[in-house]
Amino acid sequence: MHTVTVAALFSGEVRVGSPVTVKGWVRTRRTSKAGISFVALHDGSCFEPIQLVVPETLENYATEVTGLGAGCAIIASGELVESEGQGQTVEVRADRIEVVGWVDDPESYPIAKKRHTFEYLRTQAHLRPRTNAFGAITRLRNTLANAIHNYFHDRGFYWVNTPIITASDCEGAGELFRVSALDMHNLPRDDKGQLDYSQDFFGAESFLTVSGQLNLEAYCLAMSKVYTFGPTFRAENSHTSRHLAEFWMVEPEIAFADLEDNAALAEDFLKHCFRTVLEQRQDDMAFFAQRVDKQAITRLEQVIDAEFVHLDYGEAIRILDNCGQKFEFPVTWGADLASEHERYLSEQHVKGPVVVKNYPKDIKAFYMRLNDDGNTVAAMDVLMPGIGEIIGGSQREERLEVLDGRMTAPGLADELWWYRDLRRYGTVPHAGFGLGFERLLNYISGMENIRDAIPYPRTPGNAAF
Amino acid sequence: MHTVTVAALFSGEVRVGSPVTVKGWVRTRRTSKAGISFVALHDGSCFEPIQLVVPETLENYATEVTGLGAGCAIIASGELVESEGQGQTVEVRADRIEVVGWVDDPESYPIAKKRHTFEYLRTQAHLRPRTNAFGAITRLRNTLANAIHNYFHDRGFYWVNTPIITASDCEGAGELFRVSALDMHNLPRDDKGQLDYSQDFFGAESFLTVSGQLNLEAYCLAMSKVYTFGPTFRAENSHTSRHLAEFWMVEPEIAFADLEDNAALAEDFLKHCFRTVLEQRQDDMAFFAQRVDKQAITRLEQVIDAEFVHLDYGEAIRILDNCGQKFEFPVTWGADLASEHERYLSEQHVKGPVVVKNYPKDIKAFYMRLNDDGNTVAAMDVLMPGIGEIIGGSQREERLEVLDGRMTAPGLADELWWYRDLRRYGTVPHAGFGLGFERLLNYISGMENIRDAIPYPRTPGNAAF
Repeated sequence: MHTVTVAALFSGEVRVGSPVTVKGWVRTRRTSKAGISFVALHDGSCFEPIQLVVPETLENYATEVTGLGAGCAIIASGELVESEGQGQTVEVRADRIEVVGWVDDPESYPIAKKRHTFEYLRTQAHLRPRTNAFGAITRLRNTLANAIHNYFHDRGFYWVNTPIITASDCEGAGELFRVSALDMHNLPRDDKGQLDYSQDFFGAESFLTVSGQLNLEAYCLAMSKVYTFGPTFRAENSHTSRHLAEFWMVEPEIAFADLEDNAALAEDFLKHCFRTVLEQRQDDMAFFAQRVDKQAITRLEQVIDAEFVHLDYGEAIRILDNCGQKFEFPVTWGADLASEHERYLSEQHVKGPVVVKNYPKDIKAFYMRLNDDGNTVAAMDVLMPGIGEIIGGSQREERLEVLDGRMTAPGLADELWWYRDLRRYGTVPHAGFGLGFERLLNYISGMENIRDAIPYPRTPGNAAF
Repeated sequence: MHTVTVAALFSGEVRVGSPVTVKGWVRTRRTSKAGISFVALHDGSCFEPIQLVVPETLENYATEVTGLGAGCAIIASGELVESEGQGQTVEVRADRIEVVGWVDDPESYPIAKKRHTFEYLRTQAHLRPRTNAFGAITRLRNTLANAIHNYFHDRGFYWVNTPIITASDCEGAGELFRVSALDMHNLPRDDKGQLDYSQDFFGAESFLTVSGQLNLEAYCLAMSKVYTFGPTFRAENSHTSRHLAEFWMVEPEIAFADLEDNAALAEDFLKHCFRTVLEQRQDDMAFFAQRVDKQAITRLEQVIDAEFVHLDYGEAIRILDNCGQKFEFPVTWGADLASEHERYLSEQHVKGPVVVKNYPKDIKAFYMRLNDDGNTVAAMDVLMPGIGEIIGGSQREERLEVLDGRMTAPGLADELWWYRDLRRYGTVPHAGFGLGFERLLNYISGMENIRDAIPYPRTPGNAAF
């Protein structure tokens, strides 16, 4: 008897007529008066459950099979046969059902009912992967992560794990979480009564990283093509559906490269991701298109077919200024683009993906390369219809004297001595970008709340799990 | 002119006679009296640098080429030719050398000299990837990470990102780092004067995770085969060469599985990792065998060829008790095995990998499955010659009433309500293990200090980078 996954039964790799054993959880059970029970069994391997056709001749039919309900764990053996029912190609004619785990008090099973709100399911994160929607997002997340790693691996990039705990707090990318091993009830003080972080674990104030970029640049200037893909943190006390305190970020960094190379990489990378999920997760993407967002598949196909339009920031401002549309936030050269502006550009003006380049230097980070005009830096944002900015990146300032003119925040040059150092020893033009993994996942699935793209949703004020 | 990596030049994919452009950093330059300079150029893509043969006829020969030294960044164009020198198969006869980045004051270049101690290089983590050893470990780390992901992906496992920040502090796996967004200079107090964590970001005391296992079990009981591969943290104030405060851990978890399935997975997984690095990183493994540890390659080959020997903990104690060897720590039923015991078992007794199973329950965690004898649990450690324990795992206690008898630590059952809950709804036998990624990397490379297996070494008291 051959133990197989449900996915293998549907894939055609198991021949009809074969004896098979499948193991998983009951989604539904329906018992007909004709002495047959139909059990839908899922094991997480694919979207569709397999239908088990269970005859009353089984010795535990009356005692167990007809008592099965959602969530029960069983091992089923039988013959794989062509299905006579609608909607599935094959089913299993069961000759043995072993109940491995019952559901205590089925009335209280938190996900027993067919449809729940996503909000409710966030409070049941330990059980929600058994539902259709969260089984689908879990598989999609895995496929997307694998697509990302393989994209870079196949192109000779090295994955570098930049530090999660860092002493660097000057990048100004948002509020930081502090990390400490100090005894909070007995904090050490120096002779001025100030907190004495020299007695903390790493001998200095430490934080959770907001980006691996600066550390990654050092590896880029030795290995040429590198990327990080790891967790990053922002302590922004935001309850919006688009911000997470803990999220995964993808950051490639390429040497001997400029902003154009960077934009080309971003475009090629996104298309690769979209192609891969459409190919490998047809079942789950069909679910998202049917139940979550009708545009889920076509939106990705349109991006794959599109040539990304490039606009200078200055052009973008002129377009917004002259478009006749009323915006909540003013359109002025020197101000950052708001989400409404970004969406106008991609949804109304270009009707497709847009790369906006060369932003005013005063609204961008110190490490972005100063352009010859002296007013703008070689930054880029990739904007997509339906979501706005999905990628942010830049060419990095590789010239020490120019960098020094931009590293004027107090203490920054001392703290980042090693970052400056890189500009003294074989510096080269280099560029990279950052992409929020969960944000991309939501774009693909059409799920609205970014908390539904992570395995365990965390919100300010909610430390469950 | 075709820009290629150094790896592509050596792989045979570029035909001899082709015009090529390579970009990278100078490792050495030697100028002969015959009017030729030999420049060794590396770009991180493989261990060997490519030799550039640069004739004095180049217009910047005297002004630039003969001034090149370690660390300078250049773009070189020319013809790929068969090498007349020893030790390399091909070289580039350069007809153009463009210097992109000079080295300021070559005397001060921190890694200019040929050999440095690993200890010194830890202080130059931003530049050490340019050295032979750290280029090699960076590529090896990437190859190993990719082998791990692909091992699981190809076998239908889903990668689950378990939470990094967690409210769970009861697992007792070591000292925890605290995570907080509170103002340390103005800590909120409740009416008893106690610290009021309800005002912190997540509304409760929060920590960095020590393991994703408990969270992962929930996904296992929905998706059947899952794994985590992410950072974990221990605030152990240890200066040994075998402990890290921040390290990556691999944790698979399988449903409908027992301890034997778990041990078989661990054995197959390790062999896959070793086979992959020997196949894909021949160049770097040859370096480790030559310069770091003579056994680096043969050790892996022996594991690949070995059948892992299984021993019950009780048998292991009898063997150690009767072996005539003096140990520093006593050998008693009920005590954990010390490193010296583990190494004796694998190095002297079995002379190969050993799986020790079924440890006394009192020295193991509450979640490990109680055996029928009532005294031991279905735990396992995989021990390897030369390092001792490399994998620890167990079958998990899936029976609610037995689990409750083991979850006796104050507050534990309340905190882990959701973990208990899983045992009420379709619980099944399941098992998993954990493996420290850097520890495995050091085992493979033969590097002694685990800080040399991470991109940015962090030590207690040292918060650089």
